[in-house]
Amino acid sequence: MPHDLVPGLVQGGDKIILLVLDGLGGLPDRSGKTELEAASKPNLDRLAKKGALGLIDPVATGITPGSGPGHLGLFGYDPRHYDIGRGVLAALGIGFDIRESDLAARLNFATFDSGGNVTDRRAGRIETEECERLVKLLDAIELPGVETFVRPVKEHRAAVIFRGPGLGENVNDSDPQAVGVPPRKIVGEDDESRKTADLSNAFMAEARKALASEERGNGVLMRGFARYQKIPSFQSRFGLNAIAIAMYPMYRGVAKLVGMEPLDVRGKMTSLFEAVTAHYNSYDFFYVHVKDTDKYGEDGDYEAKKKAIEQVDRLIARFDDLPDKVLMVTGDHSTPSQMKAHSWHPVPFLLSGRRVRPDATTQFGEEACSRGNLGRFPAIEMLPLALANAGRLMKYGA
Amino acid sequence: MPHDLVPGLVQGGDKIILLVLDGLGGLPDRSGKTELEAASKPNLDRLAKKGALGLIDPVATGITPGSGPGHLGLFGYDPRHYDIGRGVLAALGIGFDIRESDLAARLNFATFDSGGNVTDRRAGRIETEECERLVKLLDAIELPGVETFVRPVKEHRAAVIFRGPGLGENVNDSDPQAVGVPPRKIVGEDDESRKTADLSNAFMAEARKALASEERGNGVLMRGFARYQKIPSFQSRFGLNAIAIAMYPMYRGVAKLVGMEPLDVRGKMTSLFEAVTAHYNSYDFFYVHVKDTDKYGEDGDYEAKKKAIEQVDRLIARFDDLPDKVLMVTGDHSTPSQMKAHSWHPVPFLLSGRRVRPDATTQFGEEACSRGNLGRFPAIEMLPLALANAGRLMKYGA
Repeated sequence: MPHDLVPGLVQGGDKIILLVLDGLGGLPDRSGKTELEAASKPNLDRLAKKGALGLIDPVATGITPGSGPGHLGLFGYDPRHYDIGRGVLAALGIGFDIRESDLAARLNFATFDSGGNVTDRRAGRIETEECERLVKLLDAIELPGVETFVRPVKEHRAAVIFRGPGLGENVNDSDPQAVGVPPRKIVGEDDESRKTADLSNAFMAEARKALASEERGNGVLMRGFARYQKIPSFQSRFGLNAIAIAMYPMYRGVAKLVGMEPLDVRGKMTSLFEAVTAHYNSYDFFYVHVKDTDKYGEDGDYEAKKKAIEQVDRLIARFDDLPDKVLMVTGDHSTPSQMKAHSWHPVPFLLSGRRVRPDATTQFGEEACSRGNLGRFPAIEMLPLALANAGRLMKYGA
Repeated sequence: MPHDLVPGLVQGGDKIILLVLDGLGGLPDRSGKTELEAASKPNLDRLAKKGALGLIDPVATGITPGSGPGHLGLFGYDPRHYDIGRGVLAALGIGFDIRESDLAARLNFATFDSGGNVTDRRAGRIETEECERLVKLLDAIELPGVETFVRPVKEHRAAVIFRGPGLGENVNDSDPQAVGVPPRKIVGEDDESRKTADLSNAFMAEARKALASEERGNGVLMRGFARYQKIPSFQSRFGLNAIAIAMYPMYRGVAKLVGMEPLDVRGKMTSLFEAVTAHYNSYDFFYVHVKDTDKYGEDGDYEAKKKAIEQVDRLIARFDDLPDKVLMVTGDHSTPSQMKAHSWHPVPFLLSGRRVRPDATTQFGEEACSRGNLGRFPAIEMLPLALANAGRLMKYGA
């Protein structure tokens, strides 16, 4: 990777707003239009006309990003370099206050027979309420030399965090990926990881005891071990004092990972936009996360996703009066409602600001973005682009 | 960095002309057109129609290039990898015949009080003539084991070059960046750099003696130490025997850095184009540098920049009769007259030649370039593209 020039060039400048419509990108339906193209969105189209469009690849060509890697890309961190690990993502996703050097793993409730063989790797996909009840039994487990936290995620899924010194992450999963066999013994590849392995094997044995009377979920399987390591902060890399405005803990969590100040917003979508105005003088950078676009995409509901975009369009007019700003509108990945899932399709990107070179596009949509003068580019270039347009990057070299 | 395939594939072929209109890219004015788009330029438009357009990033997305890094990019050298250093750039900029292992630094005349504290870091921004007079006093300084050269730059700025074996560049600046304090003592981080530090501290002491009777500029501050190191030559990387046709020493200097033959051209813009014809049989590659576009951009003079482009357009017809050539027209960065400064905006790029795949564009301008079939691409890909179109690259693999 070539030398990163940006940190050595940052200076003060305009504010930057990054509005993320989760899963924004789509595919055309029979009308030939995507959700974004079909939406009535006069404000976004006006911004597109004055500004510039492009298409971003959040991770890399053909890669369908999860929310974690997708957001790291938007924040200017190459997700292929900063692999934050499934366990840590799970902990961030449930809003757990994870700290440096914590060791996190994903945990599945599973059912075992009397011989200790796995009979159901997902404990019959127990309800989330049942998961929460079982988690309480495990959270009481005490292991020597570490603090142990167990938290529910969803259905049969939970997360476990070990807090203590020198816990390595180079261990195998215990999930045997098959039934009729015992779980795999966890083994560490180095001294620190052997410590993690010993703790994990002990934890699973204690879990079998604590859950002995359960019919479904009388034990656990562990996978996705990852140590939480601080990564270079957003402030140190981009010189930006940043706030993350989001309703879901997962997104605040990823933002917190790079050092943004998380703001827990509840209620209607309006609250997100009001929060930007309320905190406008206190921060340089505003990450705003809208979930509905992705949610309705995953539901396969083209109309509802379109309407969510229209709702954003009405609210975005509130940014008009905020002075001296660069505004970016994009998504962390595409979620075409036809696919009911995240996809690899490049994501529409809109850049607005007083130093932006406008292009000939007049509306915000996938097809228009493919003709925008920003071209198709990796998401990690968004931050340098925004900084430049905010007047925040000095000239490089004489 | 991936393996560079080009050097292993080069063969003979057509000539290549790289016409650099310094600071070419712009922003639309109230008419909606940039300087390039507003200019009457039938010849460039004809070339665009027959050829292909694109947009280049000289260094990287969002980075505003100085002339040094901007040109390295055009010449096919990643400016993030080849950091040539401020001192060396200053020496190149004044046309000093810098040699391998020379150690160069920027030098400011400054005023000191009787206690040795800096009272004015720029010696009242003395006139260039005054700078030239003081430089003569310093150029006479002799230091053990090295040759010392002092040359004027502009106003209070000069350059010093130490020529001798084993001079390291890892030293601090002596400029304290404040008044009322003494200059910082220069310290080296390794053995070779400690040698540089000792020489520099001795040089500054000698300078105080030589300038003792001066009212303004009775001493110097040093910064931007850099060792001049040869980089792989243009000839070895691209198999091209290249000439650099430019009126300003800075541009000849950067071209010389990569091994091009510098040709000092004086007089009107016509001379640049005449030089190409005159030397057409003696070289494979012609770098031609036009300064006016950048100069008027920096002046904030939209009309004058537009007229400079029109002047180039008239002269470029002279290339029509030159046989078997690939012609590239672009800039080392954008200099929108609205900004009166270099900017990060991608630079219009035109490629013309008998093997070029044409696109649908019919005129040369920023908006058209964003629709060109070359897309938006890093400047370092220009040379491989030109070589291919000149028939100078063999097939890779069977």
